[in-house]
Amino acid sequence: MFAYERPIRFHEVDAAGIVFFPHFLTMAHEAMESLFSPLDGGYSHLVTGRRIGLPAVALHSDFRAPLRYGDTTLVETSVLRLGNRSLTLRYLFVRKHDRVLSAEIRHTVVSTDLVHLESCPMPDDVRRVAASHLDPSVPTD
Amino acid sequence: MFAYERPIRFHEVDAAGIVFFPHFLTMAHEAMESLFSPLDGGYSHLVTGRRIGLPAVALHSDFRAPLRYGDTTLVETSVLRLGNRSLTLRYLFVRKHDRVLSAEIRHTVVSTDLVHLESCPMPDDVRRVAASHLDPSVPTD
Amino acid sequence: MFAYERPIRFHEVDAAGIVFFPHFLTMAHEAMESLFSPLDGGYSHLVTGRRIGLPAVALHSDFRAPLRYGDTTLVETSVLRLGNRSLTLRYLFVRKHDRVLSAEIRHTVVSTDLVHLESCPMPDDVRRVAASHLDPSVPTD
Amino acid sequence: MFAYERPIRFHEVDAAGIVFFPHFLTMAHEAMESLFSPLDGGYSHLVTGRRIGLPAVALHSDFRAPLRYGDTTLVETSVLRLGNRSLTLRYLFVRKHDRVLSAEIRHTVVSTDLVHLESCPMPDDVRRVAASHLDPSVPTD
Repeated sequence: MFAYERPIRFHEVDAAGIVFFPHFLTMAHEAMESLFSPLDGGYSHLVTGRRIGLPAVALHSDFRAPLRYGDTTLVETSVLRLGNRSLTLRYLFVRKHDRVLSAEIRHTVVSTDLVHLESCPMPDDVRRVAASHLDPSVPTD
Repeated sequence: MFAYERPIRFHEVDAAGIVFFPHFLTMAHEAMESLFSPLDGGYSHLVTGRRIGLPAVALHSDFRAPLRYGDTTLVETSVLRLGNRSLTLRYLFVRKHDRVLSAEIRHTVVSTDLVHLESCPMPDDVRRVAASHLDPSVPTD
Repeated sequence: MFAYERPIRFHEVDAAGIVFFPHFLTMAHEAMESLFSPLDGGYSHLVTGRRIGLPAVALHSDFRAPLRYGDTTLVETSVLRLGNRSLTLRYLFVRKHDRVLSAEIRHTVVSTDLVHLESCPMPDDVRRVAASHLDPSVPTD
Repeated sequence: MFAYERPIRFHEVDAAGIVFFPHFLTMAHEAMESLFSPLDGGYSHLVTGRRIGLPAVALHSDFRAPLRYGDTTLVETSVLRLGNRSLTLRYLFVRKHDRVLSAEIRHTVVSTDLVHLESCPMPDDVRRVAASHLDPSVPTD
């Protein structure tokens, strides 16, 4: 499990006064970028140097409790499934001050050649980092 | 079905050169705001005047083809399910120039008293607007 | 003068309940994109096809009256200065329902070769579109 | 001087491949929120608990060198002017890897009662925090 801690920013709430739900996905992506920071040059070099990325192909989210400005969320990130070209990440958003679960997101991404926008085998170093965060309760395929 | 047309903006692409996936959710929310514009004062008055909103409780998305800067997307919006306190919207993102389906999003929202952040019965006028976009292939509950 | 009309969106307000000031700049950029839509393929083709853009080099903004969710703003856009490689745009944000001036932004951009990120002479078609929106009260240089 | 360090995120670049200029303002606001974190409950409690905020009234920005995905910026923040109801902050955006100045922003904000959206005398604790970051080269008024 990889823990990413994130304060909610002033502009991330909406006219209802709670975090606008698409920003949960943005924070999930930030957590994924951080999880892959052990790659040489980080996730940014994978994308801009090697032109390989991990675009989303599927997303399942449950929102259970709101986040407000002033809250800090922990984004507990793990890998639920690790295939040859794709992987599924799970993000649990836990409100720091009361440990309430705000949201659970499952995010399936595909290893992609960004020059041709075609799927490609997952590079070994990407797979190794992902494998180090495999949820222990889940059988590998 | 409610059609919402939307050009992709300069800043909505990411370092991979395609629309950042959380922005699909933002566009879906814009389509929902527009669908509810027949309400007296529009969706904004529901939120800021009557303090009732429709926060997301669940989200299922499939991403099939990227959108790029310069594309325009049609967001074909319909109501798949209409309950007493919740409804499920479906958004089909169709790329305008080649009619390719970019994404399909299912978005379940709950009628919510924004003062107490508690669910509340869906107001009649909200229900009527939603009912006018019920997908005809789906049995009502 | 080029008029761009824009409803404020649900997520564009902040924890103070008013439009987050950087979003004024985003709306200004949208107005600029729209102003240049007469270009062949629009501003998007200039950027993605011809790899020429208009990055900001300077910005002066005065904020006078807030915008809220439910407001619509008119962004009255004109060209204050048109040089060989740069131009200055002015955006007047006028609240539609009461004609109050919300903000005035002056935005200087430089014609830029995006491959090498170096300034370049402004293409003739870009200059022609800009010239058609020159503020009549301002002497040309 | 208050230093705020910030990696550029995947989604903060635009179709030109560089950080979209309004995001500099968002990062400046984040730096201001962080500068005021010594307030009891932080800047968020000032806004959501005491209903006092610091909306922008003026902005002057010079953009000198682009930021890209993978860059980290230092946002060196100081207070240039401290009045009874307003203050002016300066943000120097310094690219971490080569110390190049990317942008300079001057941001004037007014102490504001957010319930009535009217200016109010700056609270003493806000003034004290601001005063602790006064630029030493600038005479106080």
